Amino acid sequence: MPDGAGMILIDGQPGTSIPVLDRGLQYGDGVFETIAIMDGRPLCLDAHLHRLGAGCRALGLPAPAAGVLTTEVLQVATGQSRAVLKIIVTRGGGGRGYQPPRDPVPTRIVSLHSWPAYPAEFRSTGIDALFCRSTLALQPALAGIKHLNRLEQVLARSEISATDCVEGFVSDTTGAIVEGSMSNVFLRRDNLLLTPDLKDCGVAGVVRAEILQRAGTLGLNARVQRVVRTDVPAADEVFFCNSIIGIWPVRRAGDHVFATTEFAQRLAQNLVAAKIITPA
Amino acid sequence: MPDGAGMILIDGQPGTSIPVLDRGLQYGDGVFETIAIMDGRPLCLDAHLHRLGAGCRALGLPAPAAGVLTTEVLQVATGQSRAVLKIIVTRGGGGRGYQPPRDPVPTRIVSLHSWPAYPAEFRSTGIDALFCRSTLALQPALAGIKHLNRLEQVLARSEISATDCVEGFVSDTTGAIVEGSMSNVFLRRDNLLLTPDLKDCGVAGVVRAEILQRAGTLGLNARVQRVVRTDVPAADEVFFCNSIIGIWPVRRAGDHVFATTEFAQRLAQNLVAAKIITPA
Repeated sequence: MPDGAGMILIDGQPGTSIPVLDRGLQYGDGVFETIAIMDGRPLCLDAHLHRLGAGCRALGLPAPAAGVLTTEVLQVATGQSRAVLKIIVTRGGGGRGYQPPRDPVPTRIVSLHSWPAYPAEFRSTGIDALFCRSTLALQPALAGIKHLNRLEQVLARSEISATDCVEGFVSDTTGAIVEGSMSNVFLRRDNLLLTPDLKDCGVAGVVRAEILQRAGTLGLNARVQRVVRTDVPAADEVFFCNSIIGIWPVRRAGDHVFATTEFAQRLAQNLVAAKIITPA
Repeated sequence: MPDGAGMILIDGQPGTSIPVLDRGLQYGDGVFETIAIMDGRPLCLDAHLHRLGAGCRALGLPAPAAGVLTTEVLQVATGQSRAVLKIIVTRGGGGRGYQPPRDPVPTRIVSLHSWPAYPAEFRSTGIDALFCRSTLALQPALAGIKHLNRLEQVLARSEISATDCVEGFVSDTTGAIVEGSMSNVFLRRDNLLLTPDLKDCGVAGVVRAEILQRAGTLGLNARVQRVVRTDVPAADEVFFCNSIIGIWPVRRAGDHVFATTEFAQRLAQNLVAAKIITPA
């Protein structure tokens, strides 16, 4: 299956295109989720649908019923041994102009994509990461939501792809590290596990939430707080996470080399066993 | 012509839909222009195409040739006595993931929309405006560009539509007034004409640029600077502008009532005569 060539359901029907006047295109007026499919089953579907619903509420957009989305997700996921499934919900059609229609009819798009062929070493020995110059703006009204306004991430990815690094630390405009360009980030220092506060920007990842919940059982104290660049080399280990990459330990951040990926490896095993992420 | 039901050219061909995988939908990865059509002709087309090109460059997106866009705009505008024309340029298709394709093939969409039926009083006696709670985040990398990431404007318009006001002053997250929810804003105090600096956020409007250029010939000194909420009631008059509304003087801002719309009226006549905006 070439990337992006998988099955697509639009409002429950097979399709490949949406009206030009859909507000998802016109304004990025919608939200999305990216879900790992393993052996025909979506991982953490409830958590993804929960975040999707919360994003819809934040945008004042009527969320599709979880049951409807679940049916469509399972229909698309069936028979896929390993794939990426994406859900997009937009505010649907509307006249020209920013003002949302009074009674919007959201558009649901459930699409299947090939599993990305990342080298196995990204999970085992880790990746090299840069500190991006691209920044995230502070916008509490949209923070945490996986909405369709993703130009900041596009700019950050463009910056990373011009280097030999695989992921990058993206800071907000005040200099606080918020996340990776397509992932959340954690730092371990002794038995403390830190991840940036997302009250002003960033996407509140499903895997991030699972890690915060599980840290205690793995012997660490988790803390959500402001993280800055100097915290990275001061950490014992650092890793990125999302629903598709799973856990990528950081081998090198800028010119700092980390001595261990021990906790990241143990955490990844724990998350794989719990069917939060796929095996490498 | 019902709103949004006009002719649409997609990459030069009549069409109504775009692929789900277009990055314009997936990430808001593109730019747009909104142009007034009067007697079959687009107003300020060169200025709009210039800004579109600048936006493409800022996003690292190959801009369509101005000649190609001009041909398509004229084709769609022909025979329309009064209409709104919208150009969207996206980065086109691509795999799943934020990273732009190495050789993107942009999607061009030129669409026709009905002229909005705003009451004539909006231009003559003016409008009521509120101070929006919705804010604009500071993101210099995207400031000035008319890109497709417009959730902040959607939220601001939603806020305004819940009131009896027509437009609103939108501030950045530091409290500086940046623009209207769908327009730029000017304040006149004696012979000084102020408009907010857009280095951190906001859309650098085509009509705004024309007004800044023409202020001198109308006897005013124009200045681009930081504007805050208390500057509004301290002004002699205040007005919003864009390519479609033309000039809307503000009659009331919050609970402050303005005594005159004299300069705004004179400016509007000047811009109509120069075919920058349409007659009321």
